[in-house]
Amino acid sequence: MSSIGIFDSGVGGLTVLKALREALPKESFIYLGDTARLPYGTKSRQTIKRYLDQNIEFLKGPGIKALVVACNSASSVLNGDHWNGLPIYGVIRPGARAAFAATVNNRIGVLGTRATVESGAYVRALHELAPDLEIHQQACPLLVPLVEEGWEDDPITRKVLERYLEVPLKAGIDTLILGCTHYPVLEECISEMVGSGVTLVDSALEISARIQADLLSGKIEHTHGPTTSRIWTTDTNRVFQEIGERILAPFHVDEWGLADISTVPLHF
Amino acid sequence: MSSIGIFDSGVGGLTVLKALREALPKESFIYLGDTARLPYGTKSRQTIKRYLDQNIEFLKGPGIKALVVACNSASSVLNGDHWNGLPIYGVIRPGARAAFAATVNNRIGVLGTRATVESGAYVRALHELAPDLEIHQQACPLLVPLVEEGWEDDPITRKVLERYLEVPLKAGIDTLILGCTHYPVLEECISEMVGSGVTLVDSALEISARIQADLLSGKIEHTHGPTTSRIWTTDTNRVFQEIGERILAPFHVDEWGLADISTVPLHF
Repeated sequence: MSSIGIFDSGVGGLTVLKALREALPKESFIYLGDTARLPYGTKSRQTIKRYLDQNIEFLKGPGIKALVVACNSASSVLNGDHWNGLPIYGVIRPGARAAFAATVNNRIGVLGTRATVESGAYVRALHELAPDLEIHQQACPLLVPLVEEGWEDDPITRKVLERYLEVPLKAGIDTLILGCTHYPVLEECISEMVGSGVTLVDSALEISARIQADLLSGKIEHTHGPTTSRIWTTDTNRVFQEIGERILAPFHVDEWGLADISTVPLHF
Repeated sequence: MSSIGIFDSGVGGLTVLKALREALPKESFIYLGDTARLPYGTKSRQTIKRYLDQNIEFLKGPGIKALVVACNSASSVLNGDHWNGLPIYGVIRPGARAAFAATVNNRIGVLGTRATVESGAYVRALHELAPDLEIHQQACPLLVPLVEEGWEDDPITRKVLERYLEVPLKAGIDTLILGCTHYPVLEECISEMVGSGVTLVDSALEISARIQADLLSGKIEHTHGPTTSRIWTTDTNRVFQEIGERILAPFHVDEWGLADISTVPLHF
């Protein structure tokens, strides 16, 4: 039970793994990417819950002491801070807290997948912090495929972003949550388009401070001994490891493997 | 065992169901859309095979006498004309035959998902018909999300299509296979861009003639009695039925249901 688990539907959550390795050099990590069923952002709440359940049961096999759900769409179906008895960290609340700390005019934008936006999870988390916040959500279903096509710095991506950013910018937001692990790849482009008056919040990156605090307070046990980092995906994908190594550099990965989650029942 | 089954990852294969209902008014149909795991076009060959296996086993429950695999990505992993003992019809060979019949200059373009293009299935099927055909494939991963975003008639979609069509058009193709059930939705736009010198082939629509022939020859049994059309999906999706009814009009659907394929084991 010595590793910290990190879950995402794809490759995006590796930015979270990197942040955690920087912050917690004495910890071991297991990363699971459910690439055989991605994307989660277009699926129903019920289906995302079933998949998350199955992934977590699978990760209990090798043993994890806590789980970071880096995927915003999967985080949006979490209730509370445990799942099947395991301490769990979603990205929605840390992202909401960071946005609340950053805003001055109390107008916050949220870019997310359709699942994340329709769940209303960011709106709830922000309104728990301050009920008078004005929140402008925008579902951006094309951003994930554009990133996966490798068109990060491209006039077409700019055109798509222009359209997605139009309503939040007209509303006068001063803070914008990048509510999907893929979006930080577009950070430079988004930052240019929204201008210096808007603070960008990468919700996934806010999580390592919280885990550090829980390790310090003893809520999660520290691990002693040699550390390992293992990365598993549910589908074979020749580009995953390539992109992954680029994101994680200079960190070394001890194992890239294929996870057969079909050994765990999928409950309806 | 009286229905003809139709499989697709999503809503696109309903164009095939409509064509079959028009051609075969005395037959009953069961349509299965694996919306809980779509898209297939970005998954590995091995994963697509596993999913197809599980879907077919599931369809054997209610009983089907033949299966049309409307999804090009799933068709690209088929070997032969049976699957687990069931007569099966993929869209690749009928599409290849229609393109071969249409071409004059023997230069054929293929637009498809990454899975379909990388499988090389259209290239093999076309070269079986004539080894000297010149084939220009283009993977178009953004077209499915653009259609699902509802941006069919949109300057952004035109820009994306311009880029995808550049290489095939430069090569001087006179025939273009729309190798994904989503693409016929863009047919008007593509047709305008490629001009009247290029014939578009909707590979999925070529299949009903083949099934009609096999019903006539007795390879598949005719059904007698009242006909029914049932449509099931593996995920709940409020827009699926809406889009589906629009595609199928004026045909009536007897049942829209949720399919729990997790009752069937998923073999690695």
